[in-house]
Formats: sequence, structure tokens, C-alpha cells
Amino acid sequence: MRVITWDDIVAARARIAPYIAATPLRSYAPLDAELGGGIRVLVKHENHLPTNAFKARNAMSVMTALSAEQRARGVIAATRGNHGAGLAWAGQTLGVPVVICVPHGNNPEKNAAMRGFGAELVEVGKDYDEAAQHAARLAAERGLHVAHSTNDRHVIAGAGTLWAEVFEQASPDAIVVAVGGGSQAVGAIVARRERALPIFGVQAANASAIHDSWHAKQRLTTARADTFADGLATRATYDATWPALRDGLAGFVAVSEDALASAIRMLIRTTHNLAEGAGAAGLAGLVALRDQLAGKTVAIVLSGSNIDSATLKSLM
Amino acid sequence: MRVITWDDIVAARARIAPYIAATPLRSYAPLDAELGGGIRVLVKHENHLPTNAFKARNAMSVMTALSAEQRARGVIAATRGNHGAGLAWAGQTLGVPVVICVPHGNNPEKNAAMRGFGAELVEVGKDYDEAAQHAARLAAERGLHVAHSTNDRHVIAGAGTLWAEVFEQASPDAIVVAVGGGSQAVGAIVARRERALPIFGVQAANASAIHDSWHAKQRLTTARADTFADGLATRATYDATWPALRDGLAGFVAVSEDALASAIRMLIRTTHNLAEGAGAAGLAGLVALRDQLAGKTVAIVLSGSNIDSATLKSLM
Repeated sequence: MRVITWDDIVAARARIAPYIAATPLRSYAPLDAELGGGIRVLVKHENHLPTNAFKARNAMSVMTALSAEQRARGVIAATRGNHGAGLAWAGQTLGVPVVICVPHGNNPEKNAAMRGFGAELVEVGKDYDEAAQHAARLAAERGLHVAHSTNDRHVIAGAGTLWAEVFEQASPDAIVVAVGGGSQAVGAIVARRERALPIFGVQAANASAIHDSWHAKQRLTTARADTFADGLATRATYDATWPALRDGLAGFVAVSEDALASAIRMLIRTTHNLAEGAGAAGLAGLVALRDQLAGKTVAIVLSGSNIDSATLKSLM
Repeated sequence: MRVITWDDIVAARARIAPYIAATPLRSYAPLDAELGGGIRVLVKHENHLPTNAFKARNAMSVMTALSAEQRARGVIAATRGNHGAGLAWAGQTLGVPVVICVPHGNNPEKNAAMRGFGAELVEVGKDYDEAAQHAARLAAERGLHVAHSTNDRHVIAGAGTLWAEVFEQASPDAIVVAVGGGSQAVGAIVARRERALPIFGVQAANASAIHDSWHAKQRLTTARADTFADGLATRATYDATWPALRDGLAGFVAVSEDALASAIRMLIRTTHNLAEGAGAAGLAGLVALRDQLAGKTVAIVLSGSNIDSATLKSLM
């Protein structure tokens, strides 16, 4: 039993269509030449979305599925980055109040972006878990809808809309997709429907809980998630995405911090687009799978460009 | 007498519409906060175009205006960057052969992009002028259409289409626009029609021929054009754009290399979009005009993101 069906993606697409234009799917000869192996890379430009990240789809899908009463009361989430910016943007667009709880010391550029889209930003707790506990209390006190970044069928259907676009734009032989919580990968698994299309997952080797679980065929957690690719910094599997990932992926690779940094530099050099760590993870995974996918047309997602300046400076 | 009229822009827009989607015009609260002065900045995202630069419009406008016979014979230009990539992309899209002459030692990332779009790249001569002379000889020999980067009414009408979009998307109080050859600025001057809308030009202080001419009210040349913003590296005025620039601009500022680098960093930090030097010049000019434009809504163009990795590394 899948958490969502193709019909859910079609419905999400109809809901978000007034607010989100289709993003381009492009190929770059210099990227193909550098990657080698006769691979043709199709790059889905989710960095063109209003928050520079595919999470804008997920958030708008959630927000447009709320009842009028829920919208009037508002939405809350604990998040450190793109999920929060997506919710803040969707809330600003639709006139829904949004509260975001972030731990003390969260990245100031991400905080500025969330505040910039009109969210009430609550800096609370020493880490994500404490911020999430505070969010749960605030939600109960104020009657706010809690928007989880992954365990929500509307989130996954929102991510699926990017693949619905891809399959109208081209017919790739394979897909390599970054896994943070897994919404993007499960969206791909559902959107491929009856196509014989292998989908490969990618995680950071330093935050490999879902990768490790997939290879062990059982749900595992990791004690730490020490990757600069904060969009991938998860330590566990998620109820809503684990079964589909377990059964639906053709393979799962883990990539080093150096490989993620190298993929960011390769995207800048060959496509002149900025990417954050999670946004370049699809390419990093494709580099790892280069021999296996030689000669194929492979779709990856440039899923976000919200890299902070200090990180960009250090990896250039 | 203007080189083009509003009707030329309308016609160019109809010609390029099948190939170029409208680009977003966005505001960023973190950018406004950092700029200060109560200015609301509207950023036109020409970095979303297929070649990451507004020149894609100019080239497609030229290419779609050719006769069938001209298209069959092909197009040639001497150029070092975005004009060549635009022509190569437009040629590839329409099946028109494109020859680009670049001087020896031209930036390898730019050469790779032009070759990547299928252009025949001829590396010839020690500088731009020698490459241009060779291009003229080849054009005569092979019967190719010479596509000039500025002195062409279809180029200017193509650049004007971006402003036609802006005026449908918003109603800015002022515009600050980078001037290389001047197509973007003259496009704005024609597209504003009867609006009472001041348009300010920006050049690099190290390549200030048109800026100097505007202030002197006579056409001047400079011996050198030593800016890292290669899209602005011009040493003279152009027949097709000079009269409109002379009469149509409300002011003209020159900005330092440091100011251009600072504007690139500001765009990365506050919008998480990559920009090349010319692509950030609008913002650099707005910083220089901050006091004069306090409290206004000002449109700028992120006109291109094709910065090479070495330059990006050095300025981060």
C-alpha cells in the first residue's frame, strides 16, 4: 500500500498550478562532457522556484489542501531551512499565518529568508528536537496546523509534481535522487507508474540512516547527521516514505562531503547555476553510479540553491 | 528618431514566444533590508533563460527575423561570451548553422558553452578586433549573416521584450540598468513609452566610454576596458544605441570593480542566485544611487549568471 497514488499527484498539481510554473528540464553539453561515460544528464531546475527549492511545491501542496478554518488559524513547523521557507512563502501567498520554530544558532541567512516571507520566527531550544517540542506546545495552545516536512501525504504529492513535469518534458532511462526525508524519491516512485525506470537514492555518507536501512532491509537510525548538506541531515527513516523507498528503489549510494562539494563546483562550472549540498546530491550520486549508468539519459534534480555564503566560500 | 519602436518590441516578443518563457520578477526582503533606504528592489531573473543570460532574447529575435534563405546559409559573429552562447542556442533550436569567432585565450568555460550549443567555434587572432576581421572574411566567403551584438534593431527589440514583461509584472518607480553595448537600456527606454519612469545607466568605471560620453554629451572612446565584468567591457558608443541613451537616460553612474564584486556577493547572500559581473551591475548601480532612490520601487535585471569559477572563487 502506497502512501499516495498518481491521482494524489494530479490533484496536487492542479492545486499548486496557480502559484508554481513548471520548471525547465535542461541538458548541458559541458556537464555531459565532464561527467563522461556517454551519459546525457537532464537537470530539473527546481532552483527556479520562488524559494529557490523544490520544497515550495511541498509546502504549497499542504497549504492549498487545508480547510478555510485551518487556513484562518494558521500553520506551524519546526525546521531549519527550505521547508520553513516554503511554508512561509506559501503562507504569504495565500494569506495564511505561519510560525516557524528554529533552534538557537540556526543559520542567519535561512532565518532571514523565512522572516522575509513574512513568517513569525521563534528561536527556541538548543537543537531541532527542542524546537519541535516547543512547536507542538504552540500548536496546541493556538490551534495551529502542524506541517511536517515529510510525514504528510500532501508533502509527498507536492514533490511528485516535479516528476509529473519531468515525464512530460522527456523520457529518461534512469533517475538519481537525493534523499533527505524521501519526499522527492517517493514522488518519483509513484509518478513513474508503469514505466520500467530505475530510480536510485543518494544520501550523504555522514547522514546515511535511510541508505543504511535500505541495504539492511530494516529501519535503522544514526546517532549523528554531520553533513554540510543540511537538506540531507536526517538521522532516521520516516513512516510516510520508508515502505515506498524500501520497495521502490533500484539502488542507494552514499556520497562523501568532498563528493557533494565537488558536485556543487561541477554544476557551477558547467551550468553556471548555484546549488546547495542537497541540491547537488543527485549529481554526486550520478558520479558514483557513472559506470553503471554509462550511455543512459539520466534525470537529476537541482533541488535547491540556498547555500550560505560561508559554505560556498569554503568549498570554492 | 529612435532605432526601434514599441511595435518592434511587440513583434520580437511574438517571434520569440515559442522559445522563451517569461522570466520571474521577484522581490527579496533580505535584499531590501541590506540595501536600506526603504527601497523595494524588483529583480528580473534573466539568469533563468536557456543560456543563463538575457542575450538569449536578443539572439532569438535576430534569428527568427532572418529569411529562410539566410537561415539556410547560417549566421556568424565575433564575440567572447553571452552573445555567442545566445546565437549558438538559437541556432541549435532553429536548425541554423552558427559560426563564432573568438580570440585565442578566450575563457574556456565560455567556449565550452558555445560549442555545447552546437556552434562551430573558430579561435583566431590575438584580440577581439582580429577575431572580428576574420569573421567578416568568413562571412563574405560563405555568405553568412553577420549578427552584431548591439548594432542591430532586432537585437535591441529582443532586449526590449524583457521590459515588456516587467511592465506587465509590476509598476516600478525607476529602473537601473547595466550598459555594455546598450541594448538592454535602449529596450527599456522604448518599452516605457509614455510612462514617467526615470531610467539610470550603469557602467564599470574601468570601461566607462558610454558613461563618459553621456556626461560629456559627445561620443568618446576609451583606450582600455579592464573590467572583470566582461559583458560590460566595451570601449566606445554604438551607432544603434547612442542617440537613445544620450536622450533617454535620467542619469548614468560608474561603479568600481569592488562594487561589482560586492553586488555579486550581495545577490548570493540575499537571493541565493549566481550572477556574473554584468549581471550584478544593476544592483551595484542601485547601491550607488541609494540616496537618490530612497523609498522607491526600483527594477534591476539579474541579466546573466555566466561567471567563470576562477572569478567566483577570487571574489568570494
